[in-house]
Amino acid sequence: MAKEKKQVEAITSMDVDFAQWYTDIVKKAELVEYSGIKGCMIIRPTGYAIWELIQKELDARFKATGVENVYMPMFIPESLLNKEKDHVEGFAPEVAWVTHGGNEPLQERMCVRPTSETLFCDFYSRIIESHRDLPKLYNQWCSVVRWEKTTRPFLRSMEFLWQEGHTAHATAEEAQERTIQMLNLYADFCEDTLAIPMVRGQKTDKEKFAGAKATYTIEALMHDGKALQSGTSHNFGDGFAKAFDIQYTDKENKLQYVHQTSWGMTTRLIGAVIMVHGDNNGLVLPPAIAPTQVVIIPIRQQAEGVLETADKIREKLGGCRVKVDDSDKSPGWKFAEHEMRGVPVRIEIGPKDIEAGQAMVARRDTGEKVAIAIDDLETEIPKLLERIQKEMLERARVHRDEHTYDAHNAEEMADIAANKPGFIRAMWCGDRACEDSLKETAGITSRCMPFAQETIADTCVCCGKPAKKLVYWGKAY
Amino acid sequence: MAKEKKQVEAITSMDVDFAQWYTDIVKKAELVEYSGIKGCMIIRPTGYAIWELIQKELDARFKATGVENVYMPMFIPESLLNKEKDHVEGFAPEVAWVTHGGNEPLQERMCVRPTSETLFCDFYSRIIESHRDLPKLYNQWCSVVRWEKTTRPFLRSMEFLWQEGHTAHATAEEAQERTIQMLNLYADFCEDTLAIPMVRGQKTDKEKFAGAKATYTIEALMHDGKALQSGTSHNFGDGFAKAFDIQYTDKENKLQYVHQTSWGMTTRLIGAVIMVHGDNNGLVLPPAIAPTQVVIIPIRQQAEGVLETADKIREKLGGCRVKVDDSDKSPGWKFAEHEMRGVPVRIEIGPKDIEAGQAMVARRDTGEKVAIAIDDLETEIPKLLERIQKEMLERARVHRDEHTYDAHNAEEMADIAANKPGFIRAMWCGDRACEDSLKETAGITSRCMPFAQETIADTCVCCGKPAKKLVYWGKAY
Repeated sequence: MAKEKKQVEAITSMDVDFAQWYTDIVKKAELVEYSGIKGCMIIRPTGYAIWELIQKELDARFKATGVENVYMPMFIPESLLNKEKDHVEGFAPEVAWVTHGGNEPLQERMCVRPTSETLFCDFYSRIIESHRDLPKLYNQWCSVVRWEKTTRPFLRSMEFLWQEGHTAHATAEEAQERTIQMLNLYADFCEDTLAIPMVRGQKTDKEKFAGAKATYTIEALMHDGKALQSGTSHNFGDGFAKAFDIQYTDKENKLQYVHQTSWGMTTRLIGAVIMVHGDNNGLVLPPAIAPTQVVIIPIRQQAEGVLETADKIREKLGGCRVKVDDSDKSPGWKFAEHEMRGVPVRIEIGPKDIEAGQAMVARRDTGEKVAIAIDDLETEIPKLLERIQKEMLERARVHRDEHTYDAHNAEEMADIAANKPGFIRAMWCGDRACEDSLKETAGITSRCMPFAQETIADTCVCCGKPAKKLVYWGKAY
Repeated sequence: MAKEKKQVEAITSMDVDFAQWYTDIVKKAELVEYSGIKGCMIIRPTGYAIWELIQKELDARFKATGVENVYMPMFIPESLLNKEKDHVEGFAPEVAWVTHGGNEPLQERMCVRPTSETLFCDFYSRIIESHRDLPKLYNQWCSVVRWEKTTRPFLRSMEFLWQEGHTAHATAEEAQERTIQMLNLYADFCEDTLAIPMVRGQKTDKEKFAGAKATYTIEALMHDGKALQSGTSHNFGDGFAKAFDIQYTDKENKLQYVHQTSWGMTTRLIGAVIMVHGDNNGLVLPPAIAPTQVVIIPIRQQAEGVLETADKIREKLGGCRVKVDDSDKSPGWKFAEHEMRGVPVRIEIGPKDIEAGQAMVARRDTGEKVAIAIDDLETEIPKLLERIQKEMLERARVHRDEHTYDAHNAEEMADIAANKPGFIRAMWCGDRACEDSLKETAGITSRCMPFAQETIADTCVCCGKPAKKLVYWGKAY
């Protein structure tokens, strides 16, 4: 009992210290272990299994739209990184430089990829010749490195895992279409699979990607009212094509520049899942990405027939990811442990249950506990998992909407920013000066100009000039 | 027709120049494109799709033995790399060093992982406390970097993709058992999936891994008679555990060192597939790892009903990876292109075939072409793919056995090494001096001491002293 208590005590309450609560979960649910290398984390089996499920689903959705996977080198020679001016300015200050190979200094230093636009462009310039070679719809799964000063597991780390899609198209229209298609694919994935509702929109010029013509984003609201940028999709126009000389001959045999896009999602999504769904007992995983969806815990497991029944139930639930925990820990310890790890459904089965022909079934997300006839588990549990998945999305949507505020003028903006953590919807004149000012005075940044535009006031919330766009603002991770 | 001819002409015959033939296939089958970074290759969609199929099958086999996936940082601080003496001596001369992060020099330089023993050991030293924490059966899929002077696509490149398994056990026996289990898993996988027969055995001390107590290997014979080390499994004993202080308390509450293993396979396997199965028309893929198993080529595709029938056949073959090539190239061009890419089965369907209710079915591996009734394709094609898979393994085994020679004394050894490319089986006294001498005089190295030991002579093939072991020798990639 002492040990069980210790485990529960070790989690900081999210209401007391959200940041510490997050760190506690990441460690106690064994998602991550810190490594000896500052800012680099070790992703442990539970964390990695979540990532594998995310990968599998995303990858299938990519491929359904014609995307193919490739693998590019992890190194970028300095001269290649320097080819596109905005891009190098954005990334050069935060790359890791390789200067020696074996015992010898390199003639030209190389950075470890912070992102691979330059490599894909160099590649495309060599393999694209004719309009018949277009479009190119390539993606890669890999790790990238950005030299961050402050890091947090999943949210911001020196090295992280991601996918980066890079496409080349014959026309500007096709590139724009693909940019939006991938943004919507990301948002749908997050809603269907991670049970996280997203605001879809465009970044302001200040917030867009280094070298992009336009950046689109999906933004989620965490439990503490902060925003998390969860995926981005960029339209590059022909800027990179001109810098890297990527041309094709069109049907009239004329040389044309290609139009490009790129889009990426990262292990940061796991951080979003923690901060949207987690509670004071630990992680709460949506069934779609739970490495274990159902854990069966035998009560008085030495008693005759208990383990056998647990195993029979496991076999019946073969369509789910199900485990029997028959370790020699106490049931109470096991409850706490699997709650900490966010397993969506727990089935308890003991001698009395067997006698009554039923099992106790507990939901991780709501704590609800009901008795279900053993014979019905096979049909009821998959339905329950589906229900949990849907209701988790709905609860997150309600929370998000309840923490989304409209500010019609500067006073309201200041009040909400100071007192009400959440998204703030407010009108903007389009000037960067107003973004800078709001960042300085209220600590908030523009998250996006949502696709669903409305006019909630006529003037800019900051300067009072005529408003051009509705913007979602917030404090961000 | 000119273009078709050009494509065929561009492949060097394997009998004229095997190395050039290999390079031609790698390029023409679009497996790889060279990048601007010396020794680093770009894996193109066809090459990467083969790797994905290899990964999927291997990963499932790993998981069936209880292995879990994790992800470790790509950087290793110099002090960590230095902890195990033999290991650092083996790898330090061939690593890439990161010396700067952003614009600032690092306090301690870090290398990009050439392999991750040191990272796993550091990790294990922090998470293993009790016998209850054992065994740890972890694996990761990632890329590693080794600063090679001469490189060849897939076979030897500066950066390559691989998996590395790292396990920790309570006892020496358990570690040895896991080492052999994984070697056999590798060999079975290569035979079942890649259709490549393997010699299973142990490396001599000279050839073993830096820091290992014993290294086991699977060795394959390429079409040109050279050997390819295709996977290795190492027993580390408690050497790393002592260097990294990885201890656990046993059931009697005494501190004990763990016993460790590691094992890896790489994208080099794709090179093996090319060099074992390929021919003068290009790549020949075993169905199990062919991204496209069946290509349907419409003949006179503008004629009524042809494309419709092709599509219907595609739907019927939904259990296979099947494509219709309805591009506007000529059928002859398509035949050559899909042969180059190694697609196992080609189905030709034109107006005359439709009239006769049949389709022409051609095997890539043998060139055989037969008519099969359209109604039978659904049952016949999957059977044919299975047959091809089996027969490719059998053909490779016959080739391997026909190119495996016994040398009973020094004269025979010199003769075979000079004139008969292949494996040489010969007895060895166990002295490294004889290995060095054979390398110098005949250019051959010991490939392995096979598990299946026999005595084919009483004396060492090199020095004439009493023989201890049967060894497979050969020239190696």
